[in-house]
Amino acid sequence: MTSGERHDPGRSGRGVPGVRPPGPAEPPARGRRAGGRRAGDSGTREAIGEAARAQFAEHGYHGATIRGIAAAAGVDPALVHHYYGTKEALFAAAMRIPVVPSEVLTAALSGREAGGPGFGAHLVRTALTLWESDGIKETFLALLRSAVTSDQASVMLREFISDSILSTVARLTGLDKQGSPAEAEYRAAMVATQMLGLALTRLVLGLPAVAGASVDELAASVGPSVERYLAGDIELPPRLARPKRPARPRGSA
Amino acid sequence: MTSGERHDPGRSGRGVPGVRPPGPAEPPARGRRAGGRRAGDSGTREAIGEAARAQFAEHGYHGATIRGIAAAAGVDPALVHHYYGTKEALFAAAMRIPVVPSEVLTAALSGREAGGPGFGAHLVRTALTLWESDGIKETFLALLRSAVTSDQASVMLREFISDSILSTVARLTGLDKQGSPAEAEYRAAMVATQMLGLALTRLVLGLPAVAGASVDELAASVGPSVERYLAGDIELPPRLARPKRPARPRGSA
Repeated sequence: MTSGERHDPGRSGRGVPGVRPPGPAEPPARGRRAGGRRAGDSGTREAIGEAARAQFAEHGYHGATIRGIAAAAGVDPALVHHYYGTKEALFAAAMRIPVVPSEVLTAALSGREAGGPGFGAHLVRTALTLWESDGIKETFLALLRSAVTSDQASVMLREFISDSILSTVARLTGLDKQGSPAEAEYRAAMVATQMLGLALTRLVLGLPAVAGASVDELAASVGPSVERYLAGDIELPPRLARPKRPARPRGSA
Repeated sequence: MTSGERHDPGRSGRGVPGVRPPGPAEPPARGRRAGGRRAGDSGTREAIGEAARAQFAEHGYHGATIRGIAAAAGVDPALVHHYYGTKEALFAAAMRIPVVPSEVLTAALSGREAGGPGFGAHLVRTALTLWESDGIKETFLALLRSAVTSDQASVMLREFISDSILSTVARLTGLDKQGSPAEAEYRAAMVATQMLGLALTRLVLGLPAVAGASVDELAASVGPSVERYLAGDIELPPRLARPKRPARPRGSA
């Protein structure tokens, strides 16, 4: 546990804005779309969660469908939506990720421009703050453990990161509107190389200088790198530079 | 002993200069300092390797000693040095890392200035080229797997990265001569956040945009971030800025 607090969520702009602070890792019993329903039928909900875990593991994040998960759980697809909402939310619940990543990112990043000042630091701060939340470190370790142990799990995690997290980042930062989709994907992936490395060194390895720094300190040091990947003048693989950079004006002033 | 190699070293500037391209992951039977000795007594050598694995796991990279490993293997410490050379080389062999990281880094980076143009890209290219080598991916996965599974293994890997890899980077880039030792440690750790994230996304997760890019492409995109961490004007945690930045002229124009 790094900068070591278990803290109260409302303490001073540290929380991720607009997002309920995640509780301890829970079974998929959040019933986010369950409206006023009482949690009486938690057996059904758990059966869906179980089926989802199995289906995601077997078919990957792409391949698993709400329909297939419903069939495996022996329920109507509408019930899956009812209990869990989107496929992403279902995946998050099944994997015991205490938040829905795209929701957190949307709350934290919308309205900000990718090129705007301090955007990179803001993104880093958002991610780091989230990682300090209860249950996240354990979830991260569990996901990474499975990815390192099983090819199947690695595919699942890769697809989830690509489909859910990176595409959200691309959309929120307007990356998907500039350049080609391939460029957006590449830039978002570069952000992932930095952010996942931060998670690995801070949460798993606990490198002293990384684990001992505060969220704000790391945001200040790492933010500009993230900003450069998102909106800066990085050197792109030539095959990616299509619509916006006709002949790739390299070295143009 | 960087002479005897397994593949054609001259293959087009891709190899790490001055370092034998690593062969497939081998048991610790490299006998790096074994001079002209024949590998007749491979039993002893393997016993030392076994003892080393156990001692590193139990005491961490810091805590394990050549003396303790020799005792555990029931041999004279001189024999450990004879077969394996340094503690780092012994660790590398025991962990089936097909190279000695500090040797590779020294060969690749010495004589280059951390602030020099293209240094970051060169460092990234060196690491990526190494990772493409036979046996490295498997070793990386194995180390990461153990680190994610066991706290003990995580401590061991952390200490190895700090003591061997990061301190070598700090020394070779002159980081250890500028600023405080704490600043050097922090900058090197920032490099680690980027480089390990690159390894994680490329080797473990296989994010398409990262796994599909060439070494040179990634070096071009990521290099400047590494350069900034090593020698650039990054925002340092205030407590680190001692000798060089008297009162931390934050925001001074």
